[in-house]
Amino acid sequence: MCPPAPLAPSSGVDPVSPRQYLDVVRARIDERLREIFAQVEGDTTAAAPATLPVLAAARDLTMRGGKRLRPAMLFAAIECVEPGAHPRATTDVGAALELFQTYLLIHDDWMDNDPVRRGAPSVHVSLARHYGDAHLGACSAILAGDLLSALVHELVGSVELPAARRRALVQAFGRMEREVILGQCLDVTHNQDIQRIHDLKTGSYTVRGPLLLGAAIAGAPEEVWRAFERFAEPLGLAFQLRDDVLGAFGSEADTGKPVGGDFREGKSTLLVRHALEHLDASDRDELRAVLGRRDASEADVLRAQALVERSGAREHAESVVRALRERCLAALDTPALLPDGRRLLAGFAAMLSERSK
Amino acid sequence: MCPPAPLAPSSGVDPVSPRQYLDVVRARIDERLREIFAQVEGDTTAAAPATLPVLAAARDLTMRGGKRLRPAMLFAAIECVEPGAHPRATTDVGAALELFQTYLLIHDDWMDNDPVRRGAPSVHVSLARHYGDAHLGACSAILAGDLLSALVHELVGSVELPAARRRALVQAFGRMEREVILGQCLDVTHNQDIQRIHDLKTGSYTVRGPLLLGAAIAGAPEEVWRAFERFAEPLGLAFQLRDDVLGAFGSEADTGKPVGGDFREGKSTLLVRHALEHLDASDRDELRAVLGRRDASEADVLRAQALVERSGAREHAESVVRALRERCLAALDTPALLPDGRRLLAGFAAMLSERSK
Repeated sequence: MCPPAPLAPSSGVDPVSPRQYLDVVRARIDERLREIFAQVEGDTTAAAPATLPVLAAARDLTMRGGKRLRPAMLFAAIECVEPGAHPRATTDVGAALELFQTYLLIHDDWMDNDPVRRGAPSVHVSLARHYGDAHLGACSAILAGDLLSALVHELVGSVELPAARRRALVQAFGRMEREVILGQCLDVTHNQDIQRIHDLKTGSYTVRGPLLLGAAIAGAPEEVWRAFERFAEPLGLAFQLRDDVLGAFGSEADTGKPVGGDFREGKSTLLVRHALEHLDASDRDELRAVLGRRDASEADVLRAQALVERSGAREHAESVVRALRERCLAALDTPALLPDGRRLLAGFAAMLSERSK
Repeated sequence: MCPPAPLAPSSGVDPVSPRQYLDVVRARIDERLREIFAQVEGDTTAAAPATLPVLAAARDLTMRGGKRLRPAMLFAAIECVEPGAHPRATTDVGAALELFQTYLLIHDDWMDNDPVRRGAPSVHVSLARHYGDAHLGACSAILAGDLLSALVHELVGSVELPAARRRALVQAFGRMEREVILGQCLDVTHNQDIQRIHDLKTGSYTVRGPLLLGAAIAGAPEEVWRAFERFAEPLGLAFQLRDDVLGAFGSEADTGKPVGGDFREGKSTLLVRHALEHLDASDRDELRAVLGRRDASEADVLRAQALVERSGAREHAESVVRALRERCLAALDTPALLPDGRRLLAGFAAMLSERSK
């Protein structure tokens, strides 16, 4: 591949919009991901062709991945500091972020027993069908995740950067990775500290991770790292809350998952907890009767939605999201960050906290 | 930590024996592993103290790990090329090899439903007890492996080496990692190409991987890489065959696993396949009746041992091991490798192929 051209939106006149920027990043990341999978498919065909269905399941989930917002956050972070710095390394780290997400989703979906992901059967389900055996499906899904994890680290370990930046990059990636894993660990063991779980499991690699990886690649001063942390924390929480609202009220077309799946899974979201606190006793009992029931009917789910709505939980969540967005935008208000990068980050913050899918 | 002193055995007079060398490496690697776990324990206590039991299970399995032969192979490979080169990087990569092995064992033991590892409950079993739930045990064991994988890559990604050596190291680690995962994938899906499974699943990270990582760290010329490949292939197979003999005939005290576990698991080892080919019909049926029966009695297992012995399979395996060892020693016979390193590798080859535990 030729060294990619910088994405820099900052020619001064006619700056690109966050949406256009996202499109450019997506095209670049998708191209790099296709190259990576073509290469690994070649290696795998040579070493163990019988395992190709496992690789294909991992590739398919990655490629039906959509927006590539995490790599876009990474690129935008660099625009805040040293526009266009190290585009090849950034592209590789951006692709690694997407592969990392696929790895996490595959392992999580098996742990949470989630049958659907991005509008199609999740990897453990599709591999269980392929092998005609649930345990083989689970094992090969775990191995699909492990294989992606190996690719992530080949990419991150191979980037060419000045030594101090490379060191900072590897450390930031390691911190992010461990945070996500510990967050998932809290989640599966039903820990009650929901906010910490969201911060570790989602905020870490959706917002904070990509920004700090960008800070590392751009060799950002301490002040920038702190501004990114201040921006990331409320945005990560807003993203998670938006996710909860979509998980409760979003259509299958929007979310790629059955309507009201969060109710059937009994997820203890802020919405549900607010509703349980604010409903009267009989409504509360009625809601409780649906939560965590995998076989709840469509009518049950509609009833649960109505109860959560009536409790004011949805309105409450929306107002919390607005407040969090204010906080995160305020964090951008520092001369330590270049204006074009700030504009992009503000745009992405709006997309993450307002998205409807 | 102070930069470790080189291990170099090659002061000319009074060279250390392979066993002494192994002891020195073990002490160094164990010290580094303790440092790493202390650091991660601090981070984990700060981020998510509720997950400490998961980290503890991973640490305990790592620390009851025994011989540290893989790091010793790594150090010895460097003695073949540039004695004492980059001791700090080598120590980190050696520790990473042990953490990598723990990660693999944890995931594999869950996949293979193995209840015992290194003389104690395997990680998914001990975590299932801790959480009082088999699925939580499985999930948290997978996450324990994922956490170790993150540590492995922080270590490997952070080593300080000249750029070309670092690049070669990351590539060699990535190749090894993917080979092991594909090998396990073939294994769990009952692929019949046993020799390929052994090469990918065991040979890759027991012999070939450590040697090629050493070649990368030492900046070895092409000739050395080829010599290491020629040495590694037969030794990896010999190691696996020795493992099969121990799995069939070893005592629980030696292997840390119940006697004859391979029979109960129905593993299609070379021993078993030789026996099935060479026994007469009634003995063969008798052996088949034990294979794969998890609830086989001790008497059944003793009978299976006797049948395999009678078929000549054990003797056959021993003669194959001898032939493989000849081949691997012949590969060392090249002036491209320094004599002290060769002597160490020959010693480790004997340990790996003759070991009784």
